[in-house]
Amino acid sequence: MTLPHPLVATRDDPYQDLAFVPSDKALVPFVSVDDMMRLVHFVGIEEMLRGLATYIEDDFRRWELFDKTPRIASHSKEGVIELMPTSDGEVYGFKYVNGHPKNTTEGLQTVTAFGLLADVATGYPVLLSEMTLLTALRTAATSAMVAKHLAPKGATTMAMIGNGAQSEFQTLAMKATIGLTTVRLYDTDPAATAKCAANLAGTGIEVIVCASPEEAIEGAQILTTCTADKRQATVLNDNLVGAGVHINAIGGDCPGKTELAEAILHRSDIFVEYPPQTRVEGEIQQVAEDHPVTELWEVITGRAPGRTGRDQITLFDSVGFAIEDFSALRYVRDALSDAGLGHMLDMLADPNDPRDLYGMLMRAGPDGVAQASSSVSQ
Amino acid sequence: MTLPHPLVATRDDPYQDLAFVPSDKALVPFVSVDDMMRLVHFVGIEEMLRGLATYIEDDFRRWELFDKTPRIASHSKEGVIELMPTSDGEVYGFKYVNGHPKNTTEGLQTVTAFGLLADVATGYPVLLSEMTLLTALRTAATSAMVAKHLAPKGATTMAMIGNGAQSEFQTLAMKATIGLTTVRLYDTDPAATAKCAANLAGTGIEVIVCASPEEAIEGAQILTTCTADKRQATVLNDNLVGAGVHINAIGGDCPGKTELAEAILHRSDIFVEYPPQTRVEGEIQQVAEDHPVTELWEVITGRAPGRTGRDQITLFDSVGFAIEDFSALRYVRDALSDAGLGHMLDMLADPNDPRDLYGMLMRAGPDGVAQASSSVSQ
Repeated sequence: MTLPHPLVATRDDPYQDLAFVPSDKALVPFVSVDDMMRLVHFVGIEEMLRGLATYIEDDFRRWELFDKTPRIASHSKEGVIELMPTSDGEVYGFKYVNGHPKNTTEGLQTVTAFGLLADVATGYPVLLSEMTLLTALRTAATSAMVAKHLAPKGATTMAMIGNGAQSEFQTLAMKATIGLTTVRLYDTDPAATAKCAANLAGTGIEVIVCASPEEAIEGAQILTTCTADKRQATVLNDNLVGAGVHINAIGGDCPGKTELAEAILHRSDIFVEYPPQTRVEGEIQQVAEDHPVTELWEVITGRAPGRTGRDQITLFDSVGFAIEDFSALRYVRDALSDAGLGHMLDMLADPNDPRDLYGMLMRAGPDGVAQASSSVSQ
Repeated sequence: MTLPHPLVATRDDPYQDLAFVPSDKALVPFVSVDDMMRLVHFVGIEEMLRGLATYIEDDFRRWELFDKTPRIASHSKEGVIELMPTSDGEVYGFKYVNGHPKNTTEGLQTVTAFGLLADVATGYPVLLSEMTLLTALRTAATSAMVAKHLAPKGATTMAMIGNGAQSEFQTLAMKATIGLTTVRLYDTDPAATAKCAANLAGTGIEVIVCASPEEAIEGAQILTTCTADKRQATVLNDNLVGAGVHINAIGGDCPGKTELAEAILHRSDIFVEYPPQTRVEGEIQQVAEDHPVTELWEVITGRAPGRTGRDQITLFDSVGFAIEDFSALRYVRDALSDAGLGHMLDMLADPNDPRDLYGMLMRAGPDGVAQASSSVSQ
């Protein structure tokens, strides 16, 4: 082995010069952004959104099994970095995710993410995955799964207010899961709407570009808000919200950031993922700490009513919860082998004798190559 | 692009078949186990332990700057999985680490770990690194840095009780940092002692294999305990601990796991990393919640006394804190470019237009390759 080892460029083989081949135990399957995009195309985006919705719904059904904790946030003036861990007792998962609204001005993503699954019995990671794309997919799949339970039966039209990175995913997930046929787009920036409309062309969804929120909500049974401003905004005024609709409020998802006029909350039945987190991050920041809410898992398992009347306004106060990421990572792990995707990452030290970490290190050195190499053939 | 993409084997090039070259923003420098071993050999293990001790000491000096939180633990009957985040306001870091004492019976490591640094201003990860090896190095470097402040001046001899994966690192860190010349080894398993003695041969340290804890502590100014049993054990009896020594207690590091007879605690001045975590995980689990302890950062910055007398017993109740991992990752990040090590990982989605994640995804599909490829040359 020659030292120093040259910096490996993107297209080189990182393992070409490895002193010894790591054992299987040392390797963690890794899903790169490229892998994730291939997986979406291999499965088909609508099929994948449906599959994710099913995995998420299955995990909401066994909600009580999970370790649940509000995400662990590190706030700065520019944004937030969060860790979202959970476990079902057999598999542990967590997601790293940031939220930096000003990033777009520098050509960066507002949200990037990656996640991990590990075996609870050994603590060994079993999957590391990009989650910027996967978060977009799981957020949309969650909205669609919730709409299946709460939106008016036979809903065909959605107003999509905020036409950023999440808008196409929301629309296609609703199409794939509840049979949405029409989306009415509005954004304060017409360029965002044009982008969304262009991306949805050819997907089979009827796209109607609207010039105002008022126009967007005309005839819509589902009102989705998904804007990026990190402040208390009023994307939907109370007078815009008619009886019987389902509101899918995505963008109000961190302290100080909301999208709905408070009066809407008082006219709605509010459904949330995990109350201790939603009280801090969701639309219900605006109302009293004991304002009544229903937990979604109770609706999904039949313990609590969902939609009970034609005129009822249902509101999904979506903030995104760790279990949804866990479900999404489970889906990816299961789908990966069929698709033949993923790379193996030399991420865990795995000495022959677990107590001999130092020996492993030394055998990999300039004087120990022969020994290390010979250990491969043993 | 052909789908499905074959599963890439260890020695293949994961990027050979990439639909388009990810931008720099999408790539995260990754330090594999192999990279970390090369880095240690490039720098030299003693020099690296000294360097780590310096980085850790520097971060203890600016202790008040950091976001501090006890680690977020997910306990199971087999072990624990923990996330350890921290931030200095400019850089955010966290470590994933498990502790599964029974793993060794299956040929697995008790502890595996990896960690990440991110830019607070953008939330973008800037380093992903293996930390199984790095945790071993930083734990030893922390012990040595603390011994520099607390051990009797001119200490030359250490009793090393528990000769597992950490023992060689502890010994070499003490040699590199405070000039230790002699180590006296004891373990309930003679094979562990034999392994440690063999590994330390040729390092310049005088190694004395001992048949009992009593023999090991003879003439030692520093007593290090580092055993793996996940229970309340008594590795050191009170009558073994003479006046004037420094105790470096490593193994008592999770709830229910301690190594020292309680009486020793009452004779010692106790120094800890972060009291809210040590009260739950350290030797001081055994004593009252308000038992007096001194925070190490206060000693290092001169706000609190360290060793004040010849007969004083100083006790470092080490449990490992997130800031030490942060310091270690900082060291690796700085050392990496000199060593020319590391790989770039396609971990972040980075569309040309941040709001057009969906468009990026679709352009990478079978119908969009031309567009994606052409965007590379723009």
